[in-house]
Amino acid sequence: MSGMKRATEKNLMIFSGRAHPVLAEEVAAILETDLVPTAAYEFANSEIYVRFEESVRGCDAFVIQSHTAPINEWIMEHLIMVDALKRASAKRITVVMPFYGYARQDKKHRGREPISARLMADLFKTAGADRLITVDLHADQIQGFFDGPVDHLMALPILADYVREKYGTQPLAVVSPDAGRIKVAERWSSRLGGAPLAFIHKSRRIDRPNETVANRVVGDVKGRMCVLVDDMIDTGGTIVKAAEAIMNDGAAGVIIAATHAILSDPAVDRLKNSSAAEVVVTNTLPLSPDREFDKLTCLSIAPLVARAIREVFEDGSVTSMFDGHA
Amino acid sequence: MSGMKRATEKNLMIFSGRAHPVLAEEVAAILETDLVPTAAYEFANSEIYVRFEESVRGCDAFVIQSHTAPINEWIMEHLIMVDALKRASAKRITVVMPFYGYARQDKKHRGREPISARLMADLFKTAGADRLITVDLHADQIQGFFDGPVDHLMALPILADYVREKYGTQPLAVVSPDAGRIKVAERWSSRLGGAPLAFIHKSRRIDRPNETVANRVVGDVKGRMCVLVDDMIDTGGTIVKAAEAIMNDGAAGVIIAATHAILSDPAVDRLKNSSAAEVVVTNTLPLSPDREFDKLTCLSIAPLVARAIREVFEDGSVTSMFDGHA
Amino acid sequence: MSGMKRATEKNLMIFSGRAHPVLAEEVAAILETDLVPTAAYEFANSEIYVRFEESVRGCDAFVIQSHTAPINEWIMEHLIMVDALKRASAKRITVVMPFYGYARQDKKHRGREPISARLMADLFKTAGADRLITVDLHADQIQGFFDGPVDHLMALPILADYVREKYGTQPLAVVSPDAGRIKVAERWSSRLGGAPLAFIHKSRRIDRPNETVANRVVGDVKGRMCVLVDDMIDTGGTIVKAAEAIMNDGAAGVIIAATHAILSDPAVDRLKNSSAAEVVVTNTLPLSPDREFDKLTCLSIAPLVARAIREVFEDGSVTSMFDGHA
Amino acid sequence: MSGMKRATEKNLMIFSGRAHPVLAEEVAAILETDLVPTAAYEFANSEIYVRFEESVRGCDAFVIQSHTAPINEWIMEHLIMVDALKRASAKRITVVMPFYGYARQDKKHRGREPISARLMADLFKTAGADRLITVDLHADQIQGFFDGPVDHLMALPILADYVREKYGTQPLAVVSPDAGRIKVAERWSSRLGGAPLAFIHKSRRIDRPNETVANRVVGDVKGRMCVLVDDMIDTGGTIVKAAEAIMNDGAAGVIIAATHAILSDPAVDRLKNSSAAEVVVTNTLPLSPDREFDKLTCLSIAPLVARAIREVFEDGSVTSMFDGHA
Amino acid sequence: MSGMKRATEKNLMIFSGRAHPVLAEEVAAILETDLVPTAAYEFANSEIYVRFEESVRGCDAFVIQSHTAPINEWIMEHLIMVDALKRASAKRITVVMPFYGYARQDKKHRGREPISARLMADLFKTAGADRLITVDLHADQIQGFFDGPVDHLMALPILADYVREKYGTQPLAVVSPDAGRIKVAERWSSRLGGAPLAFIHKSRRIDRPNETVANRVVGDVKGRMCVLVDDMIDTGGTIVKAAEAIMNDGAAGVIIAATHAILSDPAVDRLKNSSAAEVVVTNTLPLSPDREFDKLTCLSIAPLVARAIREVFEDGSVTSMFDGHA
Amino acid sequence: MSGMKRATEKNLMIFSGRAHPVLAEEVAAILETDLVPTAAYEFANSEIYVRFEESVRGCDAFVIQSHTAPINEWIMEHLIMVDALKRASAKRITVVMPFYGYARQDKKHRGREPISARLMADLFKTAGADRLITVDLHADQIQGFFDGPVDHLMALPILADYVREKYGTQPLAVVSPDAGRIKVAERWSSRLGGAPLAFIHKSRRIDRPNETVANRVVGDVKGRMCVLVDDMIDTGGTIVKAAEAIMNDGAAGVIIAATHAILSDPAVDRLKNSSAAEVVVTNTLPLSPDREFDKLTCLSIAPLVARAIREVFEDGSVTSMFDGHA
Repeated sequence: MSGMKRATEKNLMIFSGRAHPVLAEEVAAILETDLVPTAAYEFANSEIYVRFEESVRGCDAFVIQSHTAPINEWIMEHLIMVDALKRASAKRITVVMPFYGYARQDKKHRGREPISARLMADLFKTAGADRLITVDLHADQIQGFFDGPVDHLMALPILADYVREKYGTQPLAVVSPDAGRIKVAERWSSRLGGAPLAFIHKSRRIDRPNETVANRVVGDVKGRMCVLVDDMIDTGGTIVKAAEAIMNDGAAGVIIAATHAILSDPAVDRLKNSSAAEVVVTNTLPLSPDREFDKLTCLSIAPLVARAIREVFEDGSVTSMFDGHA
Repeated sequence: MSGMKRATEKNLMIFSGRAHPVLAEEVAAILETDLVPTAAYEFANSEIYVRFEESVRGCDAFVIQSHTAPINEWIMEHLIMVDALKRASAKRITVVMPFYGYARQDKKHRGREPISARLMADLFKTAGADRLITVDLHADQIQGFFDGPVDHLMALPILADYVREKYGTQPLAVVSPDAGRIKVAERWSSRLGGAPLAFIHKSRRIDRPNETVANRVVGDVKGRMCVLVDDMIDTGGTIVKAAEAIMNDGAAGVIIAATHAILSDPAVDRLKNSSAAEVVVTNTLPLSPDREFDKLTCLSIAPLVARAIREVFEDGSVTSMFDGHA
Repeated sequence: MSGMKRATEKNLMIFSGRAHPVLAEEVAAILETDLVPTAAYEFANSEIYVRFEESVRGCDAFVIQSHTAPINEWIMEHLIMVDALKRASAKRITVVMPFYGYARQDKKHRGREPISARLMADLFKTAGADRLITVDLHADQIQGFFDGPVDHLMALPILADYVREKYGTQPLAVVSPDAGRIKVAERWSSRLGGAPLAFIHKSRRIDRPNETVANRVVGDVKGRMCVLVDDMIDTGGTIVKAAEAIMNDGAAGVIIAATHAILSDPAVDRLKNSSAAEVVVTNTLPLSPDREFDKLTCLSIAPLVARAIREVFEDGSVTSMFDGHA
Repeated sequence: MSGMKRATEKNLMIFSGRAHPVLAEEVAAILETDLVPTAAYEFANSEIYVRFEESVRGCDAFVIQSHTAPINEWIMEHLIMVDALKRASAKRITVVMPFYGYARQDKKHRGREPISARLMADLFKTAGADRLITVDLHADQIQGFFDGPVDHLMALPILADYVREKYGTQPLAVVSPDAGRIKVAERWSSRLGGAPLAFIHKSRRIDRPNETVANRVVGDVKGRMCVLVDDMIDTGGTIVKAAEAIMNDGAAGVIIAATHAILSDPAVDRLKNSSAAEVVVTNTLPLSPDREFDKLTCLSIAPLVARAIREVFEDGSVTSMFDGHA
Repeated sequence: MSGMKRATEKNLMIFSGRAHPVLAEEVAAILETDLVPTAAYEFANSEIYVRFEESVRGCDAFVIQSHTAPINEWIMEHLIMVDALKRASAKRITVVMPFYGYARQDKKHRGREPISARLMADLFKTAGADRLITVDLHADQIQGFFDGPVDHLMALPILADYVREKYGTQPLAVVSPDAGRIKVAERWSSRLGGAPLAFIHKSRRIDRPNETVANRVVGDVKGRMCVLVDDMIDTGGTIVKAAEAIMNDGAAGVIIAATHAILSDPAVDRLKNSSAAEVVVTNTLPLSPDREFDKLTCLSIAPLVARAIREVFEDGSVTSMFDGHA
Repeated sequence: MSGMKRATEKNLMIFSGRAHPVLAEEVAAILETDLVPTAAYEFANSEIYVRFEESVRGCDAFVIQSHTAPINEWIMEHLIMVDALKRASAKRITVVMPFYGYARQDKKHRGREPISARLMADLFKTAGADRLITVDLHADQIQGFFDGPVDHLMALPILADYVREKYGTQPLAVVSPDAGRIKVAERWSSRLGGAPLAFIHKSRRIDRPNETVANRVVGDVKGRMCVLVDDMIDTGGTIVKAAEAIMNDGAAGVIIAATHAILSDPAVDRLKNSSAAEVVVTNTLPLSPDREFDKLTCLSIAPLVARAIREVFEDGSVTSMFDGHA
């Protein structure tokens, strides 16, 4: 027989874009490896240049980038890194996006809109992505936008266990800041032992249809420590108003919990000055020092992401890691 | 110059599978055309055979099939019709599925599940579909599963206007049968002039985590005529229990409203015997005579579908037809 | 160098749909493994649900399903299983279809027909199939419908060796029931040491063109034990009439041999009451007890399929297994 | 409303490669147009260069090339023409291949062979072909190799009507030169009013398995004028031996009829010296003067191809043209 | 016959992103239409939102965006606009990029780099682009990166005619600033009646290999008015040094001419203070007032782009417009 | 756990088409393996047949073919080999084309031309190629035509080191035969320690625009041994005229160096009779004995190709092999 045989090895390599290197380093440290040294910078006209400084041929590549502002910059860098890996013969490319950019544009709210969340999935596929790992998608259906395996991790256990440990002795309630997020609140309620649910309804008055009546709490929150939960906090307007409404309805207190701390202006001011006792988030997105404040607690998502990468690399079960909720 | 010129004409043709011909005929009648004569039957081993009995070359084809039970049969027939149209040189193929089969499997609820709703979108694309028209998707995100234009029609105006006309003089409330459908309930609330919202929470007791406590109504329904809304009624278990819970909470009455009347056994018995005063649905799915019952009102979706087809054929705006909610 | 190395293992896993579990179990037993435990059932509205109950990440998956009636049901289940495997990160997915559904619609017999056999190939590719294993395709060209490797197994040695052993001492002839199957008959003739060939011609009379004259045997069968061969027996009409014609032409006896025992009604009655001495088939399709009858002999295809799976898994040669006829 | 409207026209343009310009010109003449002037030549290293000398933007292009020897040359030219049309913004590209190159490699006869007929279909799709028009495929299934509409024309009426007119007063038989072509012979038999069928069986002797016994006629030809039919004549070996065997069996005479006159060496000598009274073919392939001989009759396929092009351009029915056998 | 016929119209619509609306408006004005009103803005976290405020169903869409800094922002907006058009059923989408972003990364200069110019072509294809129109690509080969028609316009006639008219009475020379651009210089030389060519060679000294010797003029420029030509001016470093070198070699003067005025810092200062008598560019990229300066002449590309759009819409020849250089 | 585990091995196999077996054998010998035995021949009508005579299932295949005349023949054979490998379950297919056919048609020089170099990339992708290895592309951008990894090897070190060793004691100059190749000349200049550059300008006279003035040397070559460099020599017309022009300008001598020795007629005569002292090429293309001549030196590319294959197989770095210029 012709040919030359050789045992096959696989080689995990972790790459990080420039959006949130601290998280990537933490992930790599947990996996006891280093990030692959990478040159990345902008040309004068703002075009991005990327080059890996070690051979990546045949590797099992995990490319981490958080889609934070300036988000188009970082998504494009992410795409370009994937293209470079494909052309440099990486064997398999897993895109790790702790926060999935454009996830909120997951449907046409009105005619002639894009579905940017699907577009992102297709762009990464086109660039060369074989798989995705992401955390707490805005809608679970976004998994179906990518034509390939998606490992959808959940920060809920990290956040909820923290809350339970700190506030679990008080009577709790779980509150959704609007009608669209109650499904998430329901999962929290389960994890917190069946705490009652409520949500905020932005109703309109029958006689003045074009005017939004102030938020109305649907459900009973009186005397309870309320956990106001969401997948992300962007400008914080909705959630802070929700906290107010809850307090007005006689809640004992409010804790805000969310996975993705976008914290666009003026979120920090709003949260600082809000009636919330604590704001608990994770570091799926980088948190610049000027956006930190006393009430803010940031839990690390790195152990979760690292475990997922290890299971993917070693063909273990990601599902089993997360109580079957992958 | 070489060549031979000719003015271009376009030619709308409407095709129907065998799942729900009455709806297709109603649509064709509104458009003042006939369904294209089609031979369709099963071979002895249950393979489906389809052949169109008129030339379809160059036509703008709309292929209507309702994905009712036996659903795999009808979906396969739908796919085979699209394949036959593609190979017979139809110019553009629009798949019309008043009810989108497998829409509920729109995400992985647990690991190692399919995302069948995405699979369906891909199968139709592969067979040759250029566009989709559908009504009231289980989740709006499913629009993004198809790689091409999707016209997502809404039966809400038809259903809600009927309800308002008949019950609008009483104080109303809109109730969602579970946490996942409140978004739809919110749209109803808007359409019904800001009627208050409620939902049913299936909570678990803290001390008995594996046991579901009977449904709990979150929100105030006392003394109100409650419109219990959902996108579909399958076996009717959830919605009938919800109706009960609402009545127990002191509602003045319950009307059940849903777009898709799947009505699998034992839905009819449950609904008949339920505390609901009326059950309002549309004919996106065929309703066999044995599933009709006194309290059931079935409104026709055909005018909506026909208008959408006309607009698509004539390059008009579907968005404008439906108050910008396409 | 950055990165983390690990030797690579491959892991064969065998999955079975619900159409013909007995065959799959037999295959697994030969390979000394178990079928992967799988939850599969229909929802009330007949939508299929599938979930694997073990991690399949990174496995070399072989998914067995026989496309028997209700065929659209089982094909859809097969597609959904492939989709679930793809999304659960199976490394390679081989679809094993002992009987390839819709194989007879392999061309447009007339205008405006589908080519459903090609459609099936494309649907499986879209769902995520990397390879196909199948047995005795209706036409060899169907291999070319799938965009990837196809291992086309042949039951001929199993069937022909059985016939030779049992009837080889008598003068044999090989007969094709129509003009389209003579190629297969020719292979049988070779395997049976050059037995003479004949076929049945359904001719029309010159003066009455629209009327089919009763079957005419072309070739000499007088005094011979005739093996009437086909790839499949569906309703049995053609083959039973062929047997009659042969007997009328003075054959010593008739044995019917076919790979795929579809046996749609009224095949069993026809065969029972036919002049055939024996009907030899394989178990590529399940044979319900009510379709068994005295003259019927069913040989197992499982060893053939198991060997092919093993060779594919171990990168051996499937060609060499089958005398170069893959 | 923004925008600028204009009535749409379509513009048929016919292009020809260099393999068989006479046929293309005849087709264009029937359609009362000219071939689009095209520069095409080889560079010194045998690379082909093509350029169209008129604007083709927006046209409905039909690109005619016969796949004759040197076949790879002409197929590559065909592909390059399609690429140039795609990049020059032709609106729709129909590839017209009166003879489909590599049609005989339509399956893997043995392991590790290509399926070149499928490869050709994919190459033309990749280059930009939207549709195919072809004549008398070696196997009907090849239609299914192309992912798009295929118009499969049949020369049978042209050839059979010629034979019937000239020889119809004598008792006829239709003979297939081997087991694989009997299906075609059966269609001839129908067209010739139910003439009896026969075929040539190349049997092996039971006691000497590796040795082919001289051809054996299966079926009755005695005293009849036999029409020996095939889709193509390549080197003529098989068909000439078949003619001999028929004559030896007492036929009154032999006429050979085939659509594609490949006539590779030494076909002409064989046919000239054969016992056939006449050889009837069409001009799907060019016939150089040195391959013409007295007994050879060549009928033109151009009217058939021209009618198909016209129907495709005008969205008429090609099926109706050909007695429903498209 | 079933069906409903209608004459076909086509409808040109022009869309503009926010990068360079002035150019798009100028193009629309020449075509005597308006830009389609479009809502486009960033969310707080910098995600882009786009919606068209008129129905675009069935239109022939031309989407203009200049890829200027912040380039990733504008490319992403461009992609999102294409996605929205696709989902809103535009019939054909032509992406107009007067400057093609990332054109300089058109190959791997070293291992493990991306080929971002190809990536951009693929991203636009994936988003839904059918065709491209662009001006003066960095390398002509980039046309081949897009899988579809590309109309490659040239600003050379606009620039060169301006130079000839103003400076044509003096003895001219055409100079390329480096070895890679001489091909462009050669086209200029032709257009300027055969003016002699020169280029700047950045040589290294044999004895000090890592040190670049100051630029060396290859070719004769003495006493001539030199036109220093390039496709783009980014930071201006290379071209200003080239101008110096030419002057040092005794040129009578230097005019700098380039299509794309990127003018990243510190290009403006460099050019102002350079020995160039005039800098001639076009407005393919927006020129903010603070980047204008006395010696700068900016010619409009809008008439060229408008003519190309008109020809594409009307199926005219773009080639004929531009002297056969498309 | 279900399943059957096995350590994974990879198996390199090298295949050669019939265009240039000597090179493939040399490559295989360096890698200490044999070429896989392959049956390949033409049928009478010039269709190519290929079959591998050993199992190739699961192998890492490298398929070598030089695209020499008759080039369409060899490219088609190359494509057919790839198709056969794909269908025979090769794990990965790397196409090795030492000379990339049609590389010169890498852009539309004028309207309505193909971009054949892109077409070739797409044809190989379609046939099943995963990767490409090639040498000295006509334009570096062609790397971007293939959708996958391309290892672009450079013969420059081989050629330049030979020249330096033999002629390095004399004062050298590097000359490009036209404006388009100066970039290559610049790399030579670097490798030869900063030798001065020149190029040949084919100018037109101002007063007679349609007439090419005899070649003009731009740059100083007086008294220097000039290395006239190009990627390929086809008919040799351009390069021989360039050599003449250089000698007329007072050069001390001329050496012609090129990677690809196409040497179409009348290249050999022209080169023999030219003023060049030596012509140095590589064996990327086969050199028939009748095209050898005294002044011709042919260096082997096999070690370079072999090392690249080994690195690809072993996941080493190809970049590091070639000084970072991959």
